[in-house]
Amino acid sequence: MNKQRFEQVIAAMQSGGLDQILITEDRALSYLTGSKANAMERVGALLIKSNGEVHSFMNKLFRFPHIEGIVAHDYVDGEDPYQMIADELMPGKVGFDDTWATKHTINILKKRDDIIPEVGSWPVNASRAVKDAEEIRLLKHSSNVNDQAIAYGIANISETITEKELADKIDDFFNANGGVNVGQWQVVCYGANAADPHHEPDGTLVKAGDEVLIDIFTPINGYWCDMTRTVYWKEVSDHQREVYEVVKKAQQAAIDAVKPGVALKDIDAAARNVIAEAGYGEYFITRTGHGAGLSVHETPFCSPDSKDIAAVGNCFSIEPGIYIPGDTGVRIEDLVIVTEDGCDVLTVYPKDLQVVGL
Amino acid sequence: MNKQRFEQVIAAMQSGGLDQILITEDRALSYLTGSKANAMERVGALLIKSNGEVHSFMNKLFRFPHIEGIVAHDYVDGEDPYQMIADELMPGKVGFDDTWATKHTINILKKRDDIIPEVGSWPVNASRAVKDAEEIRLLKHSSNVNDQAIAYGIANISETITEKELADKIDDFFNANGGVNVGQWQVVCYGANAADPHHEPDGTLVKAGDEVLIDIFTPINGYWCDMTRTVYWKEVSDHQREVYEVVKKAQQAAIDAVKPGVALKDIDAAARNVIAEAGYGEYFITRTGHGAGLSVHETPFCSPDSKDIAAVGNCFSIEPGIYIPGDTGVRIEDLVIVTEDGCDVLTVYPKDLQVVGL
Repeated sequence: MNKQRFEQVIAAMQSGGLDQILITEDRALSYLTGSKANAMERVGALLIKSNGEVHSFMNKLFRFPHIEGIVAHDYVDGEDPYQMIADELMPGKVGFDDTWATKHTINILKKRDDIIPEVGSWPVNASRAVKDAEEIRLLKHSSNVNDQAIAYGIANISETITEKELADKIDDFFNANGGVNVGQWQVVCYGANAADPHHEPDGTLVKAGDEVLIDIFTPINGYWCDMTRTVYWKEVSDHQREVYEVVKKAQQAAIDAVKPGVALKDIDAAARNVIAEAGYGEYFITRTGHGAGLSVHETPFCSPDSKDIAAVGNCFSIEPGIYIPGDTGVRIEDLVIVTEDGCDVLTVYPKDLQVVGL
Repeated sequence: MNKQRFEQVIAAMQSGGLDQILITEDRALSYLTGSKANAMERVGALLIKSNGEVHSFMNKLFRFPHIEGIVAHDYVDGEDPYQMIADELMPGKVGFDDTWATKHTINILKKRDDIIPEVGSWPVNASRAVKDAEEIRLLKHSSNVNDQAIAYGIANISETITEKELADKIDDFFNANGGVNVGQWQVVCYGANAADPHHEPDGTLVKAGDEVLIDIFTPINGYWCDMTRTVYWKEVSDHQREVYEVVKKAQQAAIDAVKPGVALKDIDAAARNVIAEAGYGEYFITRTGHGAGLSVHETPFCSPDSKDIAAVGNCFSIEPGIYIPGDTGVRIEDLVIVTEDGCDVLTVYPKDLQVVGL
């Protein structure tokens, strides 16, 4: 049990006026307790109260340990964990884990008509968003591997290897270097496929003049890396070059905007303004970035409607892009960690326009 | 858009008295519409009303197609999809997708104080639980591959390969035969590790007299296979043999109990009674089985508290086990499909006790 993290969560609850939260995400549970607890479709929950009381509700199947300071309520299949949880709730607001399957939340609401459901992960997310020294070390290690993986991926582009095959090769590289496949696929896009931010790699082959967009990510020791580079195969047109340079400038503008106290919506705007001023505003159809850590997408978020404010220890991506359907797509992405006077960029692979395959 | 499936869902809603459901699970969306829609952490939903009206709420990023008969409400980041959904809801009960992240459900509840949240996936699950001819063909193909994979796995047991390495080899076999890693790991347990139903394969090596429990599963063409065999390395004790034969008898008793109209709790009881009568009741700590199809765990469930009744076209696992901590563990698992007069067992790899490595 990580007392400092529990204290951060409880402090957030107290200042945010939420007296009880039910936390169920497996990564949040291991972040707080140090013990693995993947309940899959069953109920596995921590009830945290702002007075410091903590209860666990776990199926015996998952052998979650009994931890000093946590009141354990174990159950077996056939027993009703919803009733066990409902019996421990105080009347009033209950914060439910943002990620918990709705079925569970509704089953608890049905047991108590004196509770008010609230989104409830933010106190834990606030703690998770500020990485401690050990977490920063793990994030840097993951991004170091990612720098090697992107170099490996770019070196392996050829006219005889499909998007899917290159994506799988990069996955193999990750797996050989501590990465874990938890269901993600690596993104490789040739040509106009790069104009779809959610293209899944397929049987497409690369040809001269294509952009090659490679967006790669994996958890290593539990912490994610995530980066994107776009390069050109054999040749590049003036139009492609123009779009690339706009994205590169936008990405740098966002990086330059990062420091403690800055709103992430303003960091998003720094990138967005560069792209809009260059006349490509309508083609920047995504947010600028997302937090990364135990999850590949977590607090804080860097988008026009974000309410997050940069704080020392935050880790998030900066990944503006221009996506012109049927024409061209460019994305450049790094992870950054907020420092006292700006940020550390975790991924160092070069961003100057590269034509490869020459 | 699959009209027959929509009709089945709407018929279930009408007979169950639920006038509107919000469906968000990616597999349910593609099951109903034929189009992929993985919204990840964003909102992606179908609102289905029992009068036949259907609305979609999708982020433009995901390029969900406009489908005849579905009123499309597309949004971009920065717009409020919760308000768009709330505006289309009728007062009264709303069924929410069981699997939807609670955050979304609560954000909709906050917009409307005249709706009552209900668990809402069951009309779709009821349709999904009855496999049509094409789905049965795909399930049989997946299980055929699984029969080959289990033979491959058992043939590759050796004293120089760890649990994790054997699990990875089986994964490679699946990947070479149409399987997809969506985050699952294959389960390989040597010796007393088999007594933990959720053991993750690690660096353990097999030694003479160990049980080798192999539980393997992957989606192929979207449909899951899932099977378990337990064999013995070089030798088997009388105690191990006794436990094995009890599980084998229990598994057959459950298979023999399957036919249309039988409650799945009675199929569970058929296995459970054999194990209890043999004196091992306290060591059968799991349910007997779970439905399988587009998800590896779906309706119907075969457990003591199940309310499901077997119907022609249901596909589920039968996997009783005995787990004696620190001593021995055995599980035998097949998938079955309910037929007019009993069931088809999809996995045919032999279940007689095998001592391997001789």
